[in-house]
Amino acid sequence: MEVAELGDANGARTAETLLRVVPIGFCLAALVLMIKNSEKNDFGEVSYSNIGGFKYLVYANGLCAAYSLLSAFFTARPGSSPSVRRRAWTFFFFDQVLTYVILAAGTVGAEILYLAYHGDAKVTWSQACDSFGGVCHKATASVGITFGSVACYAALSLFSSYRLFSTFDPPAASDAGAGGIEVAAFPR
Amino acid sequence: MEVAELGDANGARTAETLLRVVPIGFCLAALVLMIKNSEKNDFGEVSYSNIGGFKYLVYANGLCAAYSLLSAFFTARPGSSPSVRRRAWTFFFFDQVLTYVILAAGTVGAEILYLAYHGDAKVTWSQACDSFGGVCHKATASVGITFGSVACYAALSLFSSYRLFSTFDPPAASDAGAGGIEVAAFPR
Repeated sequence: MEVAELGDANGARTAETLLRVVPIGFCLAALVLMIKNSEKNDFGEVSYSNIGGFKYLVYANGLCAAYSLLSAFFTARPGSSPSVRRRAWTFFFFDQVLTYVILAAGTVGAEILYLAYHGDAKVTWSQACDSFGGVCHKATASVGITFGSVACYAALSLFSSYRLFSTFDPPAASDAGAGGIEVAAFPR
Repeated sequence: MEVAELGDANGARTAETLLRVVPIGFCLAALVLMIKNSEKNDFGEVSYSNIGGFKYLVYANGLCAAYSLLSAFFTARPGSSPSVRRRAWTFFFFDQVLTYVILAAGTVGAEILYLAYHGDAKVTWSQACDSFGGVCHKATASVGITFGSVACYAALSLFSSYRLFSTFDPPAASDAGAGGIEVAAFPR
C-alpha cells in the first residue's frame, strides 16, 4: 500500500495540499491587513473593530487560516487517520462549512465597502470613503484577498466531495441511467 | 430501463424534485415581500430599490426561483436529457453556483439589516429601523426566507455532487486507501 500511494496519488495529494496551503497565506494577509486598518483624522477615528462586518471578516479569516493549516498538515501526512472514509467525511464536511463561512465574510465585506464608497442618501447613510480613504483602500485589498480564499475553498469543496462520493455506489436513479451514459454517447 | 427507473429511483427523484420545488415558494415569497417593501412617513420614503443589497437579494431570488422551476421540471421528467452524465454535470454546476449566489444574497441582506437595526456611530451611519420599522420587519422576513432557500440549495448541491461523483472512479490516493476502509474497520 505504501508503494501504491507513491504513484499517481502523490500528484493529487500535492495539488490538494497546495490548495490548502495557499489559503493560509491569503487568510493571514487579509486578516493582518484588516487588523492594522485604522485611520485618525479631523473627521474622527475609524478602525475595523468599529464595523461589525469587518470584525466577522477577521474572525472568519482567522478560522479559515487555522483550519487550512490543520487540514494541510493532515493531507500532507499519509495514512495519519484511522479510517480513510471517516477522514473523507470530515474533510468534506468542514470544507463545505468553511467555504460558506469565508464566502459570507467576503460578501459582507464587499457590501460594507459598497455602502462606504457610495453611501445611501435615502437611508441617510453618508459616503465614508471621502473622509476615510485609507481605511477603504486597505479594506478593499483585504476583501479582495478574501475572495482569493473563497476561490481556493470552492475548488477544495469540489475536490473533497469528489474524493468522498467517488467511493459511493451511484444512486438507484443514476444506476438505471448509468448504462445510459454509454448508450447516450452512441445514440441511435 | 423504464421498469428499473420505477423502483428505488422514484424515491430519490421525488426527494430531489421536492428539494427543487420548495425553493420556488421560498424565493417567490422572499422576492414579493421585498418588492412590496416600502414605507413613507415624516422621515421620508424608503423602498427596497433604494438599497443596493436588497436589490441584489431580489434579483438573486428571481434567478433562483426561475432555475428551481426549470430544474424541477427536468428532474421530474424522466429521461428528458440526451446524456445522463452531461445532465449530472449541468445540475451539479448550476446547483453550486446558485448556492453561492443565494447565500451571498442572504448574508448581504442580513448585514444591511444589522446596520439598519444597530447603525454605526463611528462611520456616522444612523439606525434606520427606528424611523422605518415596517421596512425593517418585512426585510427581516424576506432575508429569513432567503436563508430557507440557502438550506435547500446547500442540500441540493450535496445531492447533485453525490449524483455526479458517485459515477466516477475514486482518485488514485483513495484507490490505494479504498482497501484501507475495510482494513481500518478491523484494525490489527
